[in-house]
Amino acid sequence: MSRSDLSVLDVFFNPRTVAVIGASRDPTKVGYQILYNLKQKYRGKIYPVNPHAKKILGLKCYKSVLDIKDDVDLAIISVPAPVVLSVVDECGRKGVKGLIVISAGFKEIGGEGVEREKKLVEIVKKYGMRMIGPNCVGVYVPKTGLNTTFLNPSRMGFPPHGHIAFISQSGAFGIAVLDWAAMRGVGISKFISVGNKADVDEADLLDYLVKDPDTRVITLYIEGVERGQEFREALKRTTLRKPVIALKSGRSEAGARAIASHTGSLAGTDAIYSAVFKQTGVIRAYGMEDLFDMAVALSMQPPAPGKRVAILTVGGGSGVMATDACIDLGLEVPKLSEATEEKLRKVLLPIASPHNPVDVTGSARDEHLIESVEILMRSGEIDAIIWIPYFMVPGISEKIVEKFIERVKKVNRELDKPIPIVGAATGGEYTWKLAAKAEKLGIPMYLSVERAAKAVWALSRYGEWLIKNGVYEEYVERFRKIVGY
Amino acid sequence: MSRSDLSVLDVFFNPRTVAVIGASRDPTKVGYQILYNLKQKYRGKIYPVNPHAKKILGLKCYKSVLDIKDDVDLAIISVPAPVVLSVVDECGRKGVKGLIVISAGFKEIGGEGVEREKKLVEIVKKYGMRMIGPNCVGVYVPKTGLNTTFLNPSRMGFPPHGHIAFISQSGAFGIAVLDWAAMRGVGISKFISVGNKADVDEADLLDYLVKDPDTRVITLYIEGVERGQEFREALKRTTLRKPVIALKSGRSEAGARAIASHTGSLAGTDAIYSAVFKQTGVIRAYGMEDLFDMAVALSMQPPAPGKRVAILTVGGGSGVMATDACIDLGLEVPKLSEATEEKLRKVLLPIASPHNPVDVTGSARDEHLIESVEILMRSGEIDAIIWIPYFMVPGISEKIVEKFIERVKKVNRELDKPIPIVGAATGGEYTWKLAAKAEKLGIPMYLSVERAAKAVWALSRYGEWLIKNGVYEEYVERFRKIVGY
Repeated sequence: MSRSDLSVLDVFFNPRTVAVIGASRDPTKVGYQILYNLKQKYRGKIYPVNPHAKKILGLKCYKSVLDIKDDVDLAIISVPAPVVLSVVDECGRKGVKGLIVISAGFKEIGGEGVEREKKLVEIVKKYGMRMIGPNCVGVYVPKTGLNTTFLNPSRMGFPPHGHIAFISQSGAFGIAVLDWAAMRGVGISKFISVGNKADVDEADLLDYLVKDPDTRVITLYIEGVERGQEFREALKRTTLRKPVIALKSGRSEAGARAIASHTGSLAGTDAIYSAVFKQTGVIRAYGMEDLFDMAVALSMQPPAPGKRVAILTVGGGSGVMATDACIDLGLEVPKLSEATEEKLRKVLLPIASPHNPVDVTGSARDEHLIESVEILMRSGEIDAIIWIPYFMVPGISEKIVEKFIERVKKVNRELDKPIPIVGAATGGEYTWKLAAKAEKLGIPMYLSVERAAKAVWALSRYGEWLIKNGVYEEYVERFRKIVGY
Repeated sequence: MSRSDLSVLDVFFNPRTVAVIGASRDPTKVGYQILYNLKQKYRGKIYPVNPHAKKILGLKCYKSVLDIKDDVDLAIISVPAPVVLSVVDECGRKGVKGLIVISAGFKEIGGEGVEREKKLVEIVKKYGMRMIGPNCVGVYVPKTGLNTTFLNPSRMGFPPHGHIAFISQSGAFGIAVLDWAAMRGVGISKFISVGNKADVDEADLLDYLVKDPDTRVITLYIEGVERGQEFREALKRTTLRKPVIALKSGRSEAGARAIASHTGSLAGTDAIYSAVFKQTGVIRAYGMEDLFDMAVALSMQPPAPGKRVAILTVGGGSGVMATDACIDLGLEVPKLSEATEEKLRKVLLPIASPHNPVDVTGSARDEHLIESVEILMRSGEIDAIIWIPYFMVPGISEKIVEKFIERVKKVNRELDKPIPIVGAATGGEYTWKLAAKAEKLGIPMYLSVERAAKAVWALSRYGEWLIKNGVYEEYVERFRKIVGY
């Protein structure tokens, strides 16, 4: 089995049949919860394996994976570490294609665990299987309902299907992010907790996800990478087609020390990762919100063809703060030409400011935002727009979101280089009802202008990378087909 | 009327009677909405003034403020700019103590507006009144129900009573922040939109709020300050007793240009503000979330007596990221002594890590967090704690919040220098149900470890300031009385 034969990784996301080895009748056990969570949405066949039970959660139990008559595509293994090797050998004999080994007690504990992991990999390779883990949480794939996580669903939520893939070296952090994404309404294409990465690792998954039609953006949480060369090569291939955003922890010496005691990974010096990310066009995130703020923007909006940002605001103060935030990030907030200012002046209220930031003022009505955005988009003087609508002011109607986005899409359809737009919506329930609608229609919205500016920065950074590598047009053409404008 | 006679500012927050001059019967007008919003919670007497109406919203109308028999403490003025001067003169003759002039059309429009504002101030001074505005949104005081804002409440929320005062130079931004605070559950003592600051300005309000028993922390949004000397002196006096956090926009040249067209304020070079903030112990924020993340921490927790942070986590990855975030901010995440690690080892699971970050692991139970936090607090080796509980893991009970905080308070009661604690809770609905409970009981919680680290940084920064000025003990003694430990 060559690592380049990646279609086999499909088995981890869309298996026809799944065996849960170590399924338990005891609701406090991981082996119960995996089965419970899996049953909720997964529509393939599920075969629990437990030598002591006849039925669990209404499903017939098998003494061994070898007793299952049907083919088994994927086995999820949660037996105690000392039993894993024999169970995996049975999977090999059965012809199982993929394994997700949830069980801990391998390399991460040192000593005998290291030896045990080595033997595990030998068995996996001997039978030509592929394996995620050990010591992981597995996968969550909203589209197929495959869910190998083991936390009680009364305590966590699962996000809907979407276009962001998330590969996490930390299982707990991965789970927390899924839970947060569910609350935030961020859609996920595939979540993979890679655990000890004894077989499948980030490089494999990048090569798989770059071809995955459901994935537009790939996000990574990394503590340390072992196959550095392969990782770099995979990143290089991937970023020319899809943006990759990485949250690499252990930046500080104290953080690297903490990693050593957490996963036993060698964090390596942070400078090496920085260099690799720079060489391969990876966008680096500095926290969970940062990671997803940027990912959401890149999944919804085209890359920016440059650094020139126009700010279109209903609130003057927010316009000033957005300007500061852009400049802090190395973006530009250029003055507009006399001609463009004149066009804006014609459609705006007399008290409005046609300079950049364009301040339509709190007395604005829908048309002031809609006409201005078209003028800005067509000006040829800017590469991206931050929209700050203040939905609560009386002149702005409840229909502003639909009307504004319809115009934006129409204009973008006619432009050679589409102009990306993100929004900032500081406010409460009403504001976020409308902001959520905007996100549904394709404009990402942020609670603060600083976060919106960071999102634009990511769009600009990725645009720069695509242009530098001569693939901007190609990417944009593909993107237009996906989003329909 | 001397500026130092500040008790008169009470009239802006707790008036016995309020006249609404420019009250309107037309629900689309500001003069209607002010009256509507004011009526919701304010329990003093309200006198609408409108020469053409008999009753508005069930309240008897007066042709002029002079026709009101009762004394009028505060007049809220929303008549067109050209009428403001005569109306204000009537207020003076009536003996009104305070004016909130909502009307725009003054200095901010230049030209005749500048002259009009000058005359306005002359009249105000002639009668010994005080004035907030013009061109402002006024005040919101949850405790007395006084609310002079004019947005439709179907489109915005109002936060509950709390301990953070917020002075905003931008009305729209101020409103958006109130709305956000309502959703986030952040309590406000007093909100003041200062508008053009023709009379009452930040310096006055600082001197007032430093004595206000409902205010623990003062937050500011500033574009430009005119009375620089007075501002600096007021800051100096204030920060020795209460933390002040300032969000100053127009940091960049482009931002400063935007301010000029927004409020006509001279932003001044940012370096001057930076220097003043440094000299006066003001903590600078770089965005709305940053401002309130820090304010919430300072309102709930004692200042940190140093920079040494312990991280107590259920998730290893989050511990690493929290460490990175602390180091980025100039905090320390020190190794613990052998003796402390030994104590931790005795109460933790064998797989847990007793180093800093202390990783109790996803298998932890309540007691692991509770015993560890006491050991850390009593160690004498750390000055603050970041708690990362992962409420969703099965071993952590629903009662963890009460149990953990009870222990924290008990230990802090016994320590000479109380140790501040903030939490990071990445997650969804269940997590935030418990996190909200923690905030109610006094531990601020953040969605990400980076934000929790920034909150600790603010606590450490303020502690440093108090120690440097020899008032740490005094502050802590007062703080203990307020929070009861």
